Amino acid sequence: MTPERLAGSAGPHVFVESLDDMVVADEDLSHLTKSLRMRVGNPLTASDGNGSWRRAALAESGTLEPVGDVVFVDPRERPVSVAFSLVKGQKPELAIQKLTELGVDRIVVLSAERSVVKWDDAKVRSAKDRWRRIVREASMQSHRAYLPELDALTPAVEWISRSDVAIAQFGGRHLGARDTSIAVGPEGGWSASELAAASQAVSLGDTVLRAETAAIAAGTLLTAVGTGRRSDVR
Amino acid sequence: MTPERLAGSAGPHVFVESLDDMVVADEDLSHLTKSLRMRVGNPLTASDGNGSWRRAALAESGTLEPVGDVVFVDPRERPVSVAFSLVKGQKPELAIQKLTELGVDRIVVLSAERSVVKWDDAKVRSAKDRWRRIVREASMQSHRAYLPELDALTPAVEWISRSDVAIAQFGGRHLGARDTSIAVGPEGGWSASELAAASQAVSLGDTVLRAETAAIAAGTLLTAVGTGRRSDVR
Repeated sequence: MTPERLAGSAGPHVFVESLDDMVVADEDLSHLTKSLRMRVGNPLTASDGNGSWRRAALAESGTLEPVGDVVFVDPRERPVSVAFSLVKGQKPELAIQKLTELGVDRIVVLSAERSVVKWDDAKVRSAKDRWRRIVREASMQSHRAYLPELDALTPAVEWISRSDVAIAQFGGRHLGARDTSIAVGPEGGWSASELAAASQAVSLGDTVLRAETAAIAAGTLLTAVGTGRRSDVR
Repeated sequence: MTPERLAGSAGPHVFVESLDDMVVADEDLSHLTKSLRMRVGNPLTASDGNGSWRRAALAESGTLEPVGDVVFVDPRERPVSVAFSLVKGQKPELAIQKLTELGVDRIVVLSAERSVVKWDDAKVRSAKDRWRRIVREASMQSHRAYLPELDALTPAVEWISRSDVAIAQFGGRHLGARDTSIAVGPEGGWSASELAAASQAVSLGDTVLRAETAAIAAGTLLTAVGTGRRSDVR
């Protein structure tokens, strides 16, 4: 079985704390019964967000009745991560949603030197809460067995100095099958000290991409490796 | 030179009717002088949208002064296209913008059997006008030498029966280096008659993608072939 495919699943997908004693969180329950108009007995799938899932049916008062056994989905052999820089006035929500849908294992929101975002602690906390909700909703929508990790706000110079991380940069080398981690800079570009700290650089192509488009393209290309989608390429 | 890279360019990018007698359209001029606060003498690039471009400087009253010679960018050897189905209540604008940024040569908005969109002629005309504006703005933003073609609304069954078009479908074969054209269905899926008409099917991966995410992923993977971004993959 390929990672992330919940074979034989039907209906919507929710995350629960325990697959043995399945209780749906209040906001998820309201989504199921109001937006999706589910009734008691309707089929769905539940996951612990850590690789395990099972088929179930909606039961009374926000609990789920198991229908099938618990199934474990192997994690990706080489987990992939995409990092991008938070920029003032830009909305990172789209990139977070799409990277989650694409099956990226780790999403990193960077604070780069040219990010020009000065947030106080309260603003950072509220942004993180909002981003985690987006990750959870997009994981439900895309029927993931693993909830991706979300790191925010990591200093860019620290993240891109890791030996497994490549920055996206015009003139960088072509992406290869062993790449697992790409960091996209702010639209103003990486600073001189960030460029000096970066361990390697890859090119995402020949057009000028907006930062969120570059992040989504990076996630598409990296996740394509693991699924063999790029395996038959010349 | 790789397609689409405007080597040595500086400043914003605009499209003009003729590169010999460069006149900036009113709405583009307002964007340059108001949003971007450009002044007479500031550098930019101009393209005819058909592969030719040149460096220029903003002159008086909406004209441009040539700075460099006209440069011709070879078209992609095997032009790539992405088609997706218009669905009621969904916004195709995001997909059109991102596919343009990624350098897709042809964007096709399909009318599929499960599209459930019944538009009168006036609504179709106004949507086409809006989409063409998005294509133009995104082409300026991404400094393209070629404006992509935009086809709307093409009957899905007609488009996907072409021998060079592959529908995106779970269980389809892996994408290969010879693929140039992918069609993404509506979220309700292809109809039985569309599935019967399709000449081939490729898989875009193992997660459940929203239609617009699938279209962006298809554009990323197809354009990656031409630029060699996938050429060194095992």
